[in-house]
Amino acid sequence: MKRVMLTVAYDGTNYHGWQLQPNVTTIESVLNGALSALLKQEIKVIGASRTDTGVHALGNIAVFDTQARMPAEKFAYALNQRLPEDIRIQDSREVPPCFHPRRQESRKTYEYKILNSAFPMPVCRLYAHFTYVPLDVVSMQKAAAYLVGEHDFKSFCSVNTTAETTVRTIYEATVEKCGDMITIRVTGSGFLYNMVRIIAGTLIEVGRGNRPPERMQDILRACDRAQAGPTAPACGLTLVKYVFLENGLQ
Amino acid sequence: MKRVMLTVAYDGTNYHGWQLQPNVTTIESVLNGALSALLKQEIKVIGASRTDTGVHALGNIAVFDTQARMPAEKFAYALNQRLPEDIRIQDSREVPPCFHPRRQESRKTYEYKILNSAFPMPVCRLYAHFTYVPLDVVSMQKAAAYLVGEHDFKSFCSVNTTAETTVRTIYEATVEKCGDMITIRVTGSGFLYNMVRIIAGTLIEVGRGNRPPERMQDILRACDRAQAGPTAPACGLTLVKYVFLENGLQ
Repeated sequence: MKRVMLTVAYDGTNYHGWQLQPNVTTIESVLNGALSALLKQEIKVIGASRTDTGVHALGNIAVFDTQARMPAEKFAYALNQRLPEDIRIQDSREVPPCFHPRRQESRKTYEYKILNSAFPMPVCRLYAHFTYVPLDVVSMQKAAAYLVGEHDFKSFCSVNTTAETTVRTIYEATVEKCGDMITIRVTGSGFLYNMVRIIAGTLIEVGRGNRPPERMQDILRACDRAQAGPTAPACGLTLVKYVFLENGLQ
Repeated sequence: MKRVMLTVAYDGTNYHGWQLQPNVTTIESVLNGALSALLKQEIKVIGASRTDTGVHALGNIAVFDTQARMPAEKFAYALNQRLPEDIRIQDSREVPPCFHPRRQESRKTYEYKILNSAFPMPVCRLYAHFTYVPLDVVSMQKAAAYLVGEHDFKSFCSVNTTAETTVRTIYEATVEKCGDMITIRVTGSGFLYNMVRIIAGTLIEVGRGNRPPERMQDILRACDRAQAGPTAPACGLTLVKYVFLENGLQ
């Protein structure tokens, strides 16, 4: 028996998110189906980040156990033959049997993209949120800086959360503009339900001038979802990087 | 009567190219339909570049004539209400009645994108050609440099061409790599049928080491399509910029 870790990239446009749910197609259900067909036995993966409907990933993580003789490295090739073209395994490797992607210490990086121009650009429409209201990037940068560190992010968490604690550590929160595209980049130890999209929605409010950057401190302190901005649309969000700290796996 | 110029951006994935054809959906047919419905009379646009099936554009050009009182600048807003989300007008303005987008002196810039990594990346699949064979970018850069200048590009033209002359001027031909993405960028006075895709296919051959960069000179001199590489897939190609020289329109 060995445990295999998969790095999974996907275009979330046509999926109801990562997590297995009845009657809808999810990344997890498609992965389980492809693995089960390949290995001719029922396989259920354990995923790392349960991304929402419409959210993309360059490298989400999943593990599964198998007695198959196939070398772990070959699973990427074999699975990609069976997966639809909007899901592609980027890497497959053996990990210790105790390796659990949600219990392992890790750093995840998300990017939220905003196209800020007079009109939407068709080739960006699936991967960036569009707004024609001019956003002040310098204010957004100042506001983002308040998020860095260990904080209670209850204000930036959907009220539907089941998390035991809403304290998380953010290592990096930056805002950059390149042409008409604004990229919010957030690296953390873990994220609450809808956390990056609520951060993006709040930074957009700051960028529009509706709130001063310093207000971020008050919003954090309030521990009240109603104090933060709206949840920004899913399509702008991409899980770009997943690094496990303990054994250097990434 | 006034002539209005539209800057048209589109995701070509779901279209049979620009040009009007019976029984298929093209960018031109959708534009004509939206304009005719808006103005309640039959409108036929004159397009600048007749991009192929699956090719994208950030700014192709079209003009039409109308007696409507609507200011030219408002057409972008009015049309975008009626167009599907994979076509978006970026700009609309009045031009002189004699302005014809294919007869006006202009510079067009195309980009051809190649994802060069072990596995395809789903979020890039619609806008970049994928190849896992490692490409030598330095060789591709050397080869591209031979294209700059006035040359007979008959070797880089589909044999189906109806062009009167196959002489064209290329002002810039560069190859850049950023992460796993290689971008070929070509600016010219005009392009023959399939020209940029044949250039891309030939540069890929050079990048694979199948031809030395200097071979580009022989290919140009041969004036024989069979000497160049294959026509690279349409999805990697985007018309990124269109500049009219005479009156500074762009």
